[in-house]
Amino acid sequence: MTAVPGIRLAVAAAGIRYQDRDDLLLIELADGGGCAAVFTRNAFCAAPVIVAREHLANAAVRYLLINAGNANAGTGDDGLRASRETCRLLADTAGCASSQVLPFSTGVIGEDLPVGPFARAIPGLLSSLRDDAWADAAAAIMTTDTVPKLASRRVALSGGTVTLTGIAKGSGMIRPDMATMLAYVATDALLPQALAQPLLRTAVERSFNRITVDGDTSTNDACVLLASGASGVAVDAPDSADGERFAAALNAVCGELAEMIVRDGEGATKLVRLHVTGAADAHEAAAVAYTVAHSPLVKTALFASDPNWGRILAAIGRAGVADLAIERVRIWLGDLCIVSGGGRDPGYSEAAGQAVMDRPEITIAIDLGRGDATTDVLTCDLSYDYVRINAEYRS
Amino acid sequence: MTAVPGIRLAVAAAGIRYQDRDDLLLIELADGGGCAAVFTRNAFCAAPVIVAREHLANAAVRYLLINAGNANAGTGDDGLRASRETCRLLADTAGCASSQVLPFSTGVIGEDLPVGPFARAIPGLLSSLRDDAWADAAAAIMTTDTVPKLASRRVALSGGTVTLTGIAKGSGMIRPDMATMLAYVATDALLPQALAQPLLRTAVERSFNRITVDGDTSTNDACVLLASGASGVAVDAPDSADGERFAAALNAVCGELAEMIVRDGEGATKLVRLHVTGAADAHEAAAVAYTVAHSPLVKTALFASDPNWGRILAAIGRAGVADLAIERVRIWLGDLCIVSGGGRDPGYSEAAGQAVMDRPEITIAIDLGRGDATTDVLTCDLSYDYVRINAEYRS
Repeated sequence: MTAVPGIRLAVAAAGIRYQDRDDLLLIELADGGGCAAVFTRNAFCAAPVIVAREHLANAAVRYLLINAGNANAGTGDDGLRASRETCRLLADTAGCASSQVLPFSTGVIGEDLPVGPFARAIPGLLSSLRDDAWADAAAAIMTTDTVPKLASRRVALSGGTVTLTGIAKGSGMIRPDMATMLAYVATDALLPQALAQPLLRTAVERSFNRITVDGDTSTNDACVLLASGASGVAVDAPDSADGERFAAALNAVCGELAEMIVRDGEGATKLVRLHVTGAADAHEAAAVAYTVAHSPLVKTALFASDPNWGRILAAIGRAGVADLAIERVRIWLGDLCIVSGGGRDPGYSEAAGQAVMDRPEITIAIDLGRGDATTDVLTCDLSYDYVRINAEYRS
Repeated sequence: MTAVPGIRLAVAAAGIRYQDRDDLLLIELADGGGCAAVFTRNAFCAAPVIVAREHLANAAVRYLLINAGNANAGTGDDGLRASRETCRLLADTAGCASSQVLPFSTGVIGEDLPVGPFARAIPGLLSSLRDDAWADAAAAIMTTDTVPKLASRRVALSGGTVTLTGIAKGSGMIRPDMATMLAYVATDALLPQALAQPLLRTAVERSFNRITVDGDTSTNDACVLLASGASGVAVDAPDSADGERFAAALNAVCGELAEMIVRDGEGATKLVRLHVTGAADAHEAAAVAYTVAHSPLVKTALFASDPNWGRILAAIGRAGVADLAIERVRIWLGDLCIVSGGGRDPGYSEAAGQAVMDRPEITIAIDLGRGDATTDVLTCDLSYDYVRINAEYRS
């Protein structure tokens, strides 16, 4: 079910940083297929992001070359040279142009990317491409992830049925501002380039751009949509019935992958859905949602299963909403109203709050009582293990 | 040396939340003295903040009544009633107007403030006022603080020598946006009201408003300057030699207290000085400094003494600086340049970086290469103990 006609994959243990595990992934797109991508907005974007953007603008993509363990970010001109060299090595062996290869890296920032391991692994990668290696692919791009992340949908369009399959990685440094840290979605639909980019942008906006683990936007975020066209089934206009069905499936795959990333957030023990309504505008809704989602005090209370709702209230109060009328703000934990009229709701009890907080998945709903704008953000708690993982990561 | 003529203090173990320790502080200002204050900008400001603001606007302050263990925030109309009632109880016994009492609370948000413990403690407080109780006072207002915070200066003015003594509390929910969580500075200088407020505002802007532990602005922040005038030594104009000497001493006391708060930040093992230069404007400088100061990844690397400078670079890159030319950005750990030309500085070595990170006090300097604006922010690391303290605080 996960295989996508026109897309082949191969993995290798290249030893770039990790030993005894796959750390290099090659994805091949059938000749004539289309590719759309969105990248991080971090000003210190990584060398492969710069190179991938250039190549995407100049040529028809045939290969994605992805390594884990070294981000090749903060590496200046040397990093750019290394990234271009890995593309050239692959292109020379595969018999395509260097610009038809998009490079991606994830891992430690600031260390030189060694080219040797790529040179040694590339012939084997090219000779072992197959269409059923999605699970291996999802595992090969992991860093601090504890589980591989894979999602798939089949959707019936008027011309036939197409498949969408996606993989993602990411666990820390997760606050995508454009796309998340390496997600790849492939389909065998025949998707015009003019349609692929806006469809991907919308899907990302509703999925990866609505999650946060720690507020730290990566230097290497990228999300790519590959469309092989191998099914022969076309998606034409975005507002057609087919366009809407395809978009729904793409949104579902991206949404599922995004949720997997938060569930696997570094040290996460809780999945938290923030639902902000009644904001004056989208900016305000997002400011409130992210202020609560990033508050270390809210996150540690969630870890402790402590219904210490005063911390939620304090976070909303510092979110920078001008002239907030606190007596109109209402806050719910699950279905339980905790705050109304500027203070604790009369119906709230500590026991009822504790019952909600004990759950592994918690919804915090906030109505600002100011307008019609809403937003949803997925996040997780802050545990001892987040500190441990990030204090030990490089060691 | 710490006593301030015209200022008397008393403490009591009122049992508001804590047992077997002082949790109530009364500060008396001599008749005719002046008082200036700045308060939190959190929209959900606590009941005592609302009441203190009202009273400060309407009457000559005689008493500050401060409790620890209960913030009386998020408590709606009941909280306002309780806060006013504590002022009335004190005023009735002391023989002054209710509006001459400023109430302050710090502790758990969202629980009703019991008035009974105040009623029982107030007679004893009034009968035990003395001028040498500053150390007891600093201890009585602690919550998760591990050390009391006290600073004092004597400054020679043209008319004689005056004393400034201050206390503060705060350890978590520290990202003052106006003043910090309860700081009180007293002087025996004769200070016109018109001068006290701007002097305090400037001092706070340079001290308490430049520290952060976790980015969580409290609902109860307040900083108060009491001027008894008991020395008979006048400070007249802010731009006079006396005005400048007094301001320097006030800035020094506030700066010392602010640094004590960060050193005692919840779970803190490192003191970190962020120094941003070369910003296009003050807003941009602050955005970069606070983005780095609040990054969980930077803070956990500091805890681990790991020179993982890529996390600093990534935080700068997501700080929202428009059109940041990364090749002009330079970053130093102490005196060691770590980043220049868009990547690792040629002179950097891991061993040299490690040597700086092993220190208990670390300066991170960031030059953006865009203009002349600068800022300094004091912060700390993020350790297991921050999570433990805040997961356990209410339990």
